[in-house]
Amino acid sequence: MIAKVVIDKKREGHALGSAEIREFIEGFTRGEIPDYQMSALAMAICCRGMTERETADLTETMKNSGTCLSWEIPTADKHSTGGVGDKLSLVIQPLAAACGVSVPSLTGRGLGLTGGTADKLETIPGYSCAQTLERFQEIVKTVGVSLSVQTDDITPADKKLYALRDVTGTVASIPLIVASILSKKLAEGAHTLVFDVKCGKGAFMKTREDATGLANALVAGAKAAGRKAAALVTDMDAPLGYAVGNANEVQEALDILKCVSSLESRVLAVTDLCVEFAALMVSLEKEIKLDEARQMCREKLEKGLALGKFEEMVTAHGGDLERFERFMAKPTFKFRIQAMKSGYVTAIDAEKVARAAFMLGAGHAQAGDRIDPRAGVTLAVKVGDRVAVGAPLATLEKSTEPDGLDAAAAELYKAFQVSPTAPEAKPLILERIS
Amino acid sequence: MIAKVVIDKKREGHALGSAEIREFIEGFTRGEIPDYQMSALAMAICCRGMTERETADLTETMKNSGTCLSWEIPTADKHSTGGVGDKLSLVIQPLAAACGVSVPSLTGRGLGLTGGTADKLETIPGYSCAQTLERFQEIVKTVGVSLSVQTDDITPADKKLYALRDVTGTVASIPLIVASILSKKLAEGAHTLVFDVKCGKGAFMKTREDATGLANALVAGAKAAGRKAAALVTDMDAPLGYAVGNANEVQEALDILKCVSSLESRVLAVTDLCVEFAALMVSLEKEIKLDEARQMCREKLEKGLALGKFEEMVTAHGGDLERFERFMAKPTFKFRIQAMKSGYVTAIDAEKVARAAFMLGAGHAQAGDRIDPRAGVTLAVKVGDRVAVGAPLATLEKSTEPDGLDAAAAELYKAFQVSPTAPEAKPLILERIS
Repeated sequence: MIAKVVIDKKREGHALGSAEIREFIEGFTRGEIPDYQMSALAMAICCRGMTERETADLTETMKNSGTCLSWEIPTADKHSTGGVGDKLSLVIQPLAAACGVSVPSLTGRGLGLTGGTADKLETIPGYSCAQTLERFQEIVKTVGVSLSVQTDDITPADKKLYALRDVTGTVASIPLIVASILSKKLAEGAHTLVFDVKCGKGAFMKTREDATGLANALVAGAKAAGRKAAALVTDMDAPLGYAVGNANEVQEALDILKCVSSLESRVLAVTDLCVEFAALMVSLEKEIKLDEARQMCREKLEKGLALGKFEEMVTAHGGDLERFERFMAKPTFKFRIQAMKSGYVTAIDAEKVARAAFMLGAGHAQAGDRIDPRAGVTLAVKVGDRVAVGAPLATLEKSTEPDGLDAAAAELYKAFQVSPTAPEAKPLILERIS
Repeated sequence: MIAKVVIDKKREGHALGSAEIREFIEGFTRGEIPDYQMSALAMAICCRGMTERETADLTETMKNSGTCLSWEIPTADKHSTGGVGDKLSLVIQPLAAACGVSVPSLTGRGLGLTGGTADKLETIPGYSCAQTLERFQEIVKTVGVSLSVQTDDITPADKKLYALRDVTGTVASIPLIVASILSKKLAEGAHTLVFDVKCGKGAFMKTREDATGLANALVAGAKAAGRKAAALVTDMDAPLGYAVGNANEVQEALDILKCVSSLESRVLAVTDLCVEFAALMVSLEKEIKLDEARQMCREKLEKGLALGKFEEMVTAHGGDLERFERFMAKPTFKFRIQAMKSGYVTAIDAEKVARAAFMLGAGHAQAGDRIDPRAGVTLAVKVGDRVAVGAPLATLEKSTEPDGLDAAAAELYKAFQVSPTAPEAKPLILERIS
């Protein structure tokens, strides 16, 4: 395998052989193929694409670069491509566990505008996402669910490649995205994989076409690797639920798990989406009808068994939920923005809301940056609501009064569109792929 | 300018701004932008292309990365994209000088199958292509012509970028090739630039379409930079003339300069091509009719004035032509291959001939590798000749008996096609661009 020849072949638009892909990626991971050759190949892949077979080979090679777990109990995991206000894992994963399907879930820390699932969980005092693989497996076996972060043992090839792609403009490529996501999920070893591919203003995939393409590729790739798989393409034009941030999202997830009776309709829609994903995992893994799985999930949620699994998981990870609810869930600085005219809320731009939350300190600009766990935005309205002049639209939240409050408030204000006519209702689930 | 944003922009197929191109290339040259970002951008340019304006900006930035010469006397230069048996510069450059147009010509050392013009010239005992820019300018002013190698002062950005492109599969891109060639030629400062774009089996551009595209882009780029310019697309399916190597090519050039009466027809065709290129340089630079320039060139050549300029140039560079003709021009090992059947020679594959010459030691595998000045191939026939069984086709030549003679002879033998019917005559000049 001569690196330059492989790059040339892809630049000319040809499919690479399995051995060429394996030797190139293994060479790169070992440090024998320099970054400048890897980034050139990554760009050629961005421009020329890869066949399903090539993508499968790339995924397989990256998966095999590290430890691969395997399970003798029923297991499933759900992966989201990332959205604004996306606290779904905090509900879905424990809910599936409550239905008897264990969930070994390794998540990433967020990079970009908002925190990741790990950042959200770690607002719970004491909760540590950084577990050894041994301890992670033990928690999954005893509790039935663990949300931890990927260790260095898992897919080191992906870690190295992603860091390079991030600085070389080579993130936007379906085959590279699929290989990155799938290699990690396959290494976890879960028998069933369900994907939540977000689509819209607050998602990486802005168009329906791109999102559907990615969803199809993820399902095809997982099946090619011998797993049961399905995907939902879901709307991400507006934030999910009302809370965007870290601690406030955990609180919203807790409200859903507790089936708080005062939940407003948008949160109820989020609850339905959580039930849908958990039901998909359960029906695929237990090989039962989706309707039956849905009913089981709804029952477990209403009986508080998903909440129970969440609490057990928090304890197993060293977290203290009581202290969270007493201190962390309450922002000590709040600033409310109000409607400047009357009408219907026709859009809440998820990306602008996320940017406002980021400006308050809810996200990492660079790996390792500290976040303010209480920083974020809590919406007071949802798309379709009618507002009068002066009605609250959202609250900016933080531990202490921020320096850049005006700029964050201005950004948040721009997220809202208020018009005289009501918008058409839009479903959260745009497409189902199985 | 954020490197990653610029790369993203090009990956998405947008045109880059002048400042973006300038700052990216300057940053790379200074070592502030790492190789892995430069190679990703180079690959994006290979896949997405560049507009004429972007190519001009890239060329200008690369030109300005080093010293730029300027001349108050009439000056012109000819650049070839490189072919097999291409000794044309040894005739054209002195011939233009004999017509009163000075030729400041900085050439490269060959990389790949055959030596470059500098390697050929340095088979003349004492001849040094490595002159300081001061001495190079002095030779041009006093003799009227100098064939030297590029110093480190000229276009360092191109030097650094080319080395990276060479190992990252990013050589094949018209805008990158144009910027690389033109930036160096513009830095030389000649007012007129004439390009010989080779096309065919022994050339980098294999198809007529690619060659014409490159020729048009080179002429457009040179004109955009305020120079007078023209190009010929010329055939490179078969080697030029009979000699392929280094010392044997210098000898063939000397025969042309001396107007040796026994010259065979293919060498006469090479002579005509040399006259054509020199006439283009002279007519553009002196602003006289091409016919008039052609006649002037033919006269100067026949009167031995081009030979005189060549001899003066050799002396100015420290070379000893007499010793060359006495020792170096005579290979001390020769091995002849013969026709295995009777018929017409319908093809002589230039690339296979070059590979045979390379196997004998005529080219550098890597920069700095030594070559055998006497190594090469001398053809005994040209396309269209009729041969009988046993008639000589070519001679493999070297200073001493080589180790890999059998393999080189086999490769050379494969270059020849002998068929019962005569091939159609094909002109050397395929297209004229002005």
